Amino acid sequence: MSEYILVTGGAGYIGSHTVIELINNGYKVVIVDNLSNSSYDAVARIEFIVKQHVPFFNVDLKNYEELNKVFQQYKISGVIHFAALKAVGESTKIPLDYYENNVSGTVTLVKACKANNVHNLVFSSSATVYGDVTRFGDNSMIPIPEHCPMDPTNPYGRTKSVIENILKDVYNSEESAWKFAILRYFNPIGAHPSGLLGEDPLGVPNNLLPYLAQVAIGRRDKLSVFGNDYDSHDGTPIRDYIHVVDLAKGHIAALDYLKNIEQGKGLYREWNLGTGKGSTVFDVYHAFVKAVGKDLPYEIVGRRAGDVLDLTANPARANKELKWEAKLSIEQACKDLWKWTTENPFGFNVENYSWTTFESDGNYDNRLHTFTNGPLTVKLANRGALIQDIVFNGERLVKAFDNGDDFKLPTNPYFGTVVGRFANRIADGKFELDGKSYQLTLNEGPNNLHAGFNGFDKNNLLGPVVKFNDGKFTVEFLIVDQDGNDGFPGTLETVVKYVIDNKSLEAEYEAHLVEGEATIVNMTNHSYFNLTDEANTNGTEVKLVSDIMMEVDAKSLLPTGKFIKNEKVTPNKPITLDDDAFFDYCFIRDEAGCGIDTRSLPVVPVFSAEHPKTTTRLTVLTTEPAFQFYTGDGVNTKGFGKRAGFCLEPSRFVNAPNHKEWAGQVTLRKGEVYGTIIKYAFEKK
Amino acid sequence: MSEYILVTGGAGYIGSHTVIELINNGYKVVIVDNLSNSSYDAVARIEFIVKQHVPFFNVDLKNYEELNKVFQQYKISGVIHFAALKAVGESTKIPLDYYENNVSGTVTLVKACKANNVHNLVFSSSATVYGDVTRFGDNSMIPIPEHCPMDPTNPYGRTKSVIENILKDVYNSEESAWKFAILRYFNPIGAHPSGLLGEDPLGVPNNLLPYLAQVAIGRRDKLSVFGNDYDSHDGTPIRDYIHVVDLAKGHIAALDYLKNIEQGKGLYREWNLGTGKGSTVFDVYHAFVKAVGKDLPYEIVGRRAGDVLDLTANPARANKELKWEAKLSIEQACKDLWKWTTENPFGFNVENYSWTTFESDGNYDNRLHTFTNGPLTVKLANRGALIQDIVFNGERLVKAFDNGDDFKLPTNPYFGTVVGRFANRIADGKFELDGKSYQLTLNEGPNNLHAGFNGFDKNNLLGPVVKFNDGKFTVEFLIVDQDGNDGFPGTLETVVKYVIDNKSLEAEYEAHLVEGEATIVNMTNHSYFNLTDEANTNGTEVKLVSDIMMEVDAKSLLPTGKFIKNEKVTPNKPITLDDDAFFDYCFIRDEAGCGIDTRSLPVVPVFSAEHPKTTTRLTVLTTEPAFQFYTGDGVNTKGFGKRAGFCLEPSRFVNAPNHKEWAGQVTLRKGEVYGTIIKYAFEKK
Repeated sequence: MSEYILVTGGAGYIGSHTVIELINNGYKVVIVDNLSNSSYDAVARIEFIVKQHVPFFNVDLKNYEELNKVFQQYKISGVIHFAALKAVGESTKIPLDYYENNVSGTVTLVKACKANNVHNLVFSSSATVYGDVTRFGDNSMIPIPEHCPMDPTNPYGRTKSVIENILKDVYNSEESAWKFAILRYFNPIGAHPSGLLGEDPLGVPNNLLPYLAQVAIGRRDKLSVFGNDYDSHDGTPIRDYIHVVDLAKGHIAALDYLKNIEQGKGLYREWNLGTGKGSTVFDVYHAFVKAVGKDLPYEIVGRRAGDVLDLTANPARANKELKWEAKLSIEQACKDLWKWTTENPFGFNVENYSWTTFESDGNYDNRLHTFTNGPLTVKLANRGALIQDIVFNGERLVKAFDNGDDFKLPTNPYFGTVVGRFANRIADGKFELDGKSYQLTLNEGPNNLHAGFNGFDKNNLLGPVVKFNDGKFTVEFLIVDQDGNDGFPGTLETVVKYVIDNKSLEAEYEAHLVEGEATIVNMTNHSYFNLTDEANTNGTEVKLVSDIMMEVDAKSLLPTGKFIKNEKVTPNKPITLDDDAFFDYCFIRDEAGCGIDTRSLPVVPVFSAEHPKTTTRLTVLTTEPAFQFYTGDGVNTKGFGKRAGFCLEPSRFVNAPNHKEWAGQVTLRKGEVYGTIIKYAFEKK
Repeated sequence: MSEYILVTGGAGYIGSHTVIELINNGYKVVIVDNLSNSSYDAVARIEFIVKQHVPFFNVDLKNYEELNKVFQQYKISGVIHFAALKAVGESTKIPLDYYENNVSGTVTLVKACKANNVHNLVFSSSATVYGDVTRFGDNSMIPIPEHCPMDPTNPYGRTKSVIENILKDVYNSEESAWKFAILRYFNPIGAHPSGLLGEDPLGVPNNLLPYLAQVAIGRRDKLSVFGNDYDSHDGTPIRDYIHVVDLAKGHIAALDYLKNIEQGKGLYREWNLGTGKGSTVFDVYHAFVKAVGKDLPYEIVGRRAGDVLDLTANPARANKELKWEAKLSIEQACKDLWKWTTENPFGFNVENYSWTTFESDGNYDNRLHTFTNGPLTVKLANRGALIQDIVFNGERLVKAFDNGDDFKLPTNPYFGTVVGRFANRIADGKFELDGKSYQLTLNEGPNNLHAGFNGFDKNNLLGPVVKFNDGKFTVEFLIVDQDGNDGFPGTLETVVKYVIDNKSLEAEYEAHLVEGEATIVNMTNHSYFNLTDEANTNGTEVKLVSDIMMEVDAKSLLPTGKFIKNEKVTPNKPITLDDDAFFDYCFIRDEAGCGIDTRSLPVVPVFSAEHPKTTTRLTVLTTEPAFQFYTGDGVNTKGFGKRAGFCLEPSRFVNAPNHKEWAGQVTLRKGEVYGTIIKYAFEKK
């Protein structure tokens, strides 16, 4: 049974960065967060960055029963405890909430630790516990050492000092059992260099840089500088700003330190996490202005009550004992913050995007994400990165289950899902690659269909990373398909990216091997379109760009290798679907086929549909050389029957791996990138 | 709607004494206590002392939902918050429990206060928060003033200082709303002068006097005196000992002070509750020795770590602002402690006595109390002070419901209950007293039977106070029957006292008027005896002391006033009960009748019973002049039918108020005492 580090508050600013460093350092992580002041989107992005699933529980620390369940479900070897309310100003207004969440929550957590024999805990404390160190008068406590007495000046700081005392009392009660690392943070700044994670303050930011960032993107007018008459080189107060990634790494150092304590010995020890280098408000201002590339408005106002000249850490103890030091500059922090800010101007909060959990067990791995862009609403789920719904001008255009659990029904006809790593049939589930033959699982009679028993459609993709820029949502899901899954060679990493503007939904699939030399790839989407709310698609008028299709062996349903004309189709002429209009054929748009990445090719229309009873015209566009048109005759599942919808699936040639002249379309080698684009465009007739 | 003071920890040592003072000062009280370190028996004794019901909830402060229900059920105008773990030594071993109970519990309590708009709170703090005040070196903090900085030296003390800080932060967050009185106790000693309440330490007492008390009654060998080389008049350390009743009164003073604060103003203020007079260990020792009347062994041992010379309060602030001062001497405290100790050598814990709640709603007002004394086990319930069971040598001797709820069935034939204030029938529910005529409720046809609709049998008696001395349990219940209840004049206070040795159960009823000039009283017990486990009493051999009975009018069932012979009875000769042996007659033991209090008369046998199938002989003895013998022909209730048991009910003459020559037996006047004894003796044939 793997050992996990439990991270409380792992969806928060410092917590999320620390989870990434933990995973980068080979730890497995379970996150517990009540999301009261953070966003699950941060967790989704963590997963996207580390490319693996991170178990998450929306549990409040005050709920002992729920918390204890997490401890019992995972083998926890240590805890990093971030979860806390943390706004100084707010703490003076609602102190009870602060004591309840921070103090009572920690007591419950430590109780659960004790009950489950978990004795290693890294506690997220704060330099706030030192209070006003200028009270000593003689600068004996600047830079601030760990032995400086605690004397916090606000309820938030008091919750931290109370917790430190509690942990110390707990340590004293069983000295040989407990190992407590108390990390006192100075001023964390910056963001993850990926631009995917950063601080997401609610309301008006309390801290200098988040405020300045909002000035930079126009959410705030100007920065207020509280006093320029301090005894520093430019008159503004000096603080110790530390890059959040450096700070995160301090936790790994502390955890490793606890791990290496001799068996049978305990520890209670405090470490400052700071740079040891003070910077003034103007130092930070100038660094950020440089990152932004333009001056930002500010105003000198009076000193703020309680502010003092200098609060710089003495980090010598952590440097020496934890073998850790802050390495990233303020300039780097400003650069990373600016990237985070420009790419996520409203943090994790993207307007007109919302999600709910989608399965009855309420797990967060499969959520239903709703995007609204003008007349277009799209709903996507993590499972198979599927399209659960498309509504345009109030008209629902696809058929799929409304209940997330139902997608697991064995009769689910691949509603809306991305099909991968390999769409359509592979004859006998067999193919040869570089002289080696592979046997895939056979999930449809003698063949492998849509990748087998554990294709993308059976998995929850990681993410999504959602952004909104230039009038469009981008929504990125990620899946790492392991070497050997369903018999496919090589570990394949795939990003499914949706772009949603106010009249189209574009899907882009990009994949590459992260292990192995070569594999085969062919992806598409399996949405069932029905332009009406009726039970079948009769009356729909469709146009196909081509009347050439693959000849299929009537028994095996596999291509013979020949192209033939479909007599019912005239290119770009309407066909009305009726009871006789059966299609389940692969039409050829470009007989020449294609290379492994079609994304540089023009995105061309291959199909359109409309219905006399409704107002929307659907056009399917793609860079792919072929497309399956399927009238859905085989649908027979909960709530949906024959011809409930039709599928239009752009892709490579069917069974390409087993046709030498087509195999190049689907063979992906190490270092190469598979890519394709499928776009659904909507217009009012 | 009445206003209540919510007292948390009201079953504890200081809490229970404070509840009494509150009620003595006209407050109404709701007690919340989780009984984790206290006993409900303290609440039962509070009720016995104050002669009224005090609502009690076994609720843990950490359970917000349950706590909130109490707030919603009563209109709470203020809170006195005692509930806490309080042992210094224990707190160093299980600090988490201390922080959880004391700190988290208080946070939840204040949250509930806030949610229910209750803003007055008196907090039970401790002089422990001051820590070692000799740290200031110059005696500037002795006697200790409230401005002495807090620096507790153990987790218990830290929970108190943390809570003070939390309350201060809460006050600061809404200064005009909150009124907090912080009471810092010095060393509470003594007990309630009634001897019914006192400190009941679990395990080895930590404090001087409780320890000394246990030495005095032989539970401990000798007192250890920790150091006699301090700089005091006798070399032992000086502390500020305060009588618990004085301390309790300090809470009333604080509550009154909060009440009188100007509308729209808040308060956060600390007050020392101490005498201001230091006493050495030997001073206290000698005072207690004087109370006990004999020397007690002690031994001088080394100083105890952390002990200091002098911890005396400066109570000037409380004296002045609260107009309160400690008045009772150490001598008085020692005397009260010694009374408490001798009358309750094991505190509330009486061996071979246990209780459970008896009704399905789990309320504490009606509990089932089990007493075992050698071969005899007796079970009593608060409802009607009823005898639910008597078991002798393993043979169950009475019939009654096992489920407490069932006693409320309308068909309950008065199983086991004390019948009061007036047993048996009163013709037409009418009588005259001092020329005034009274109409009682008519609950049996045209008559009043067994006091009416709301007799003792329908009420939960207060208490019991249970003691065990000289081989006997004494169990005292109390009921205050209000003037006008069921039409009876005068408020009657009755104590039902059971004495249980290893072969008998004696019931003594004592009643007097607390309001009104005169009333009528006639009490008995309505147990149904059956010496077998069979469904009826056939085969039982009974002997009656008399064959003279009251003649009864066949229609009205009321005495004609004549005495007649019962032909089936020969005095002291056995009669075998069979289907024909019907009895429901009042036999006369002494035609002369009696006065209002028969207890000084000999307790004589009037009836005995045995059964060939079982081994126990029952004898009923009494001081009463008559006894009803009833074969239970009217029984028809859940689980029990005709003749399930027989009743033998010693009492005054039936319908005595309406027979001039008998009325003196039952007329109770102001200043007089009604009394009677009924005894059930058991022996092996």
